[in-house]
Amino acid sequence: MDGPFAEPTNTREAILGAAFRALRKHGYASVTIQRIGDQFDKSTSLLYYHYENKDELVLETLEFLLDGFEAQFTTSEITEPREHLETFVERMCNSSAEQAHLETLLELRARAIHDERYQRHFNRSDRVFEAHLADVIEAGIDSGEFRDVDPDAVATALVMFFNGIVLRRSTDDSDAWVTRATSEIARYLEDRLYVDGD
Amino acid sequence: MDGPFAEPTNTREAILGAAFRALRKHGYASVTIQRIGDQFDKSTSLLYYHYENKDELVLETLEFLLDGFEAQFTTSEITEPREHLETFVERMCNSSAEQAHLETLLELRARAIHDERYQRHFNRSDRVFEAHLADVIEAGIDSGEFRDVDPDAVATALVMFFNGIVLRRSTDDSDAWVTRATSEIARYLEDRLYVDGD
Repeated sequence: MDGPFAEPTNTREAILGAAFRALRKHGYASVTIQRIGDQFDKSTSLLYYHYENKDELVLETLEFLLDGFEAQFTTSEITEPREHLETFVERMCNSSAEQAHLETLLELRARAIHDERYQRHFNRSDRVFEAHLADVIEAGIDSGEFRDVDPDAVATALVMFFNGIVLRRSTDDSDAWVTRATSEIARYLEDRLYVDGD
Repeated sequence: MDGPFAEPTNTREAILGAAFRALRKHGYASVTIQRIGDQFDKSTSLLYYHYENKDELVLETLEFLLDGFEAQFTTSEITEPREHLETFVERMCNSSAEQAHLETLLELRARAIHDERYQRHFNRSDRVFEAHLADVIEAGIDSGEFRDVDPDAVATALVMFFNGIVLRRSTDDSDAWVTRATSEIARYLEDRLYVDGD
């Protein structure tokens, strides 16, 4: 479940990994620097040395998580727009491997309601995904595979689908609704985007 | 912003209103029975008398909030399915009046990751909305206004849209993305559901 935290390459990454595991175990409300220290294989005093308080450390963990997600979902070059989009949607609908990370992200997003430092990270992240998807859609329009839609509008819809799945999956991990949601996303893309429906 | 808590008709509702205001002010992580008491116009000792601990009171507040939402969104009789559906979608996309309630619901949903008592309430709520929307869609199929789709699948998609909007709006209250999301939902319904597109 450690994902981007699996193989820390330096002390900072080891600290962020410890913070992530402590967030998973205790939840934001109950996490403390001491509890993060319990997940860290060096001295807890190092944490107090590097971070003023819990939020400073949790915010850096959030940034690292979001950066990892963005890199994973958005970096590959767009050579086959439709394939690229379908891979994206498939991963988004079947992201249970990243479930632990998504749940922690959701918990910190709820924190953003009361703390605008958290808010900024999520707004940036939504926009990074949206901009990447708009690029994919634009590439597909240029190549003639996709209809001449507003790329930003379809990208916003896909971000909405993704967020909707993440939110519901946080409390309901049954398969039936995911299957229905996935088939409707496919229908939307066929009706709205693809020049040749399947 | 008090919505269902605006005019308490008994002590229980006054207590739940105080709990909601304390959750808004401090967030789940920092709320305490004492802080809920600060929002209550009678003695705090009453709270300790009725509730064992903070979660017992917060869970009852959650239930009251979800019941209110469900009643508000799902009770009216379905005589005009398309109008009914469009009103639902419009309210869902423009629910900023209920923004305070939606944010608190989101915060408690994040809590559900660590506490299955919270989880059960949200699963029920998603299913209540889904079942209501499936009824509306079925009525529209029967009346010939809607295509012969799988009502459950389209209902699941609408719940996904709603959850996606709630999640993003919690950190980004700008209008541009809401306008784009709303127009794509309208397109989806036209392409997928309505026998006569607009």
